[in-house]
Amino acid sequence: MQDRIYVILSQPQKPENLGLVARNMKNTGFKNLRIIKPANITKKSYIVAVHSKEILESAQFFDDLQSAIKDLDVIFASTSKKRSNFTLIPLDEAIRIICSLPPSTKIGLLFGNERTGLTSEEVKHSNYLFYIPQAVKKPSYNLASAVLLTLFHIFILNFQIPEGMIDKPISKSEQEKMIELIIKKLEEKGVIHSTNKRHVEEMVYDIFGKAYLTERNKRLLLSIFSKGIDSKTSG
Amino acid sequence: MQDRIYVILSQPQKPENLGLVARNMKNTGFKNLRIIKPANITKKSYIVAVHSKEILESAQFFDDLQSAIKDLDVIFASTSKKRSNFTLIPLDEAIRIICSLPPSTKIGLLFGNERTGLTSEEVKHSNYLFYIPQAVKKPSYNLASAVLLTLFHIFILNFQIPEGMIDKPISKSEQEKMIELIIKKLEEKGVIHSTNKRHVEEMVYDIFGKAYLTERNKRLLLSIFSKGIDSKTSG
Repeated sequence: MQDRIYVILSQPQKPENLGLVARNMKNTGFKNLRIIKPANITKKSYIVAVHSKEILESAQFFDDLQSAIKDLDVIFASTSKKRSNFTLIPLDEAIRIICSLPPSTKIGLLFGNERTGLTSEEVKHSNYLFYIPQAVKKPSYNLASAVLLTLFHIFILNFQIPEGMIDKPISKSEQEKMIELIIKKLEEKGVIHSTNKRHVEEMVYDIFGKAYLTERNKRLLLSIFSKGIDSKTSG
Repeated sequence: MQDRIYVILSQPQKPENLGLVARNMKNTGFKNLRIIKPANITKKSYIVAVHSKEILESAQFFDDLQSAIKDLDVIFASTSKKRSNFTLIPLDEAIRIICSLPPSTKIGLLFGNERTGLTSEEVKHSNYLFYIPQAVKKPSYNLASAVLLTLFHIFILNFQIPEGMIDKPISKSEQEKMIELIIKKLEEKGVIHSTNKRHVEEMVYDIFGKAYLTERNKRLLLSIFSKGIDSKTSG
């Protein structure tokens, strides 16, 4: 999806913003950056871009919007203010439309200048005009934030937790075995007895059955209940 | 919801980041900012904060995490890296847990220092450790971006499009009347005739029935079909 999406910045003023946009693009898996001149890519942009310099290096420059979008199919323009002759849609609606387009569609995401936003001319040549919800009328999100929120919502659609990012939970049968062992130990210690059995057992299931427990967690818990309690009682 | 959520920044280094965080908080409706010292709020912070200066002014300062969280109930800590002894959950899961907490729960959202992230000690005193999905291992989101993405996802849960932000669509019966009038005009012009009637009529319904049309749009369309086509044919 990200490969056929083009981030288009119209006349961005601050060099830092170009760096921040590149960084946000990299973090969300985008790489196509188009810039409508004038724009200043300076040392500052590269410093802020951190590990995303290649996005700035491969950015394409255009003289005007028309030439920046002529090989694309559908343009979504971001605005923070109402435009009297144009229909606005919220960000999540724009994302839904993007998802509903055939996979060969080339999509432009257009963001205006920091101070002035998009011109009416630029809005006119966009297919959809979207706004990012905000709690107050002023201030609006800054340029890099608007880009980030838009890109993150597209990125997250297909995001899968990478293997190894978190440890796998132990299997259901291992969970059951562990809880049974905990209950057995609690019975041996007299924590669970005939009058509170059902009540305490259910609470044990509630605490340990709903937790996300890994192999490492299981080993610690079993050690606490098998030895930890023993040593405490005896020492 | 936002009133009982506290954004806690642990030892933020860059004065600009404090301003950016304040701006992002304002845009998403949050106001409680807590800062663990050392931290530098400078002129730079205020310049970047734009219309959110009051958030910086009312920020509370603390000597350590313990004192910053002692009156709160549940702490969610943001991390970009795996921690061997702690279970990580993705942002959306953290948001779901936040939503599942009773309305009187006071929640802390903890973000670490820009370079080092949260210390193990800080992670230890948090209830949940969450990460914001990203497409690459490096770089991670910068501090203000991590705060923004977290706050936006909470804010958007209860966001309602403000009245007046977009014009109301015309009613279904007005839409029907308008389409019938368009079809009538197209029949008069001979665009619709006996052999293509069903086909073209369906396409007209498809184009105009699925569009979001306001009173203003309706007037223009009726004018185009009533007069516009006439004048073109006659001129």
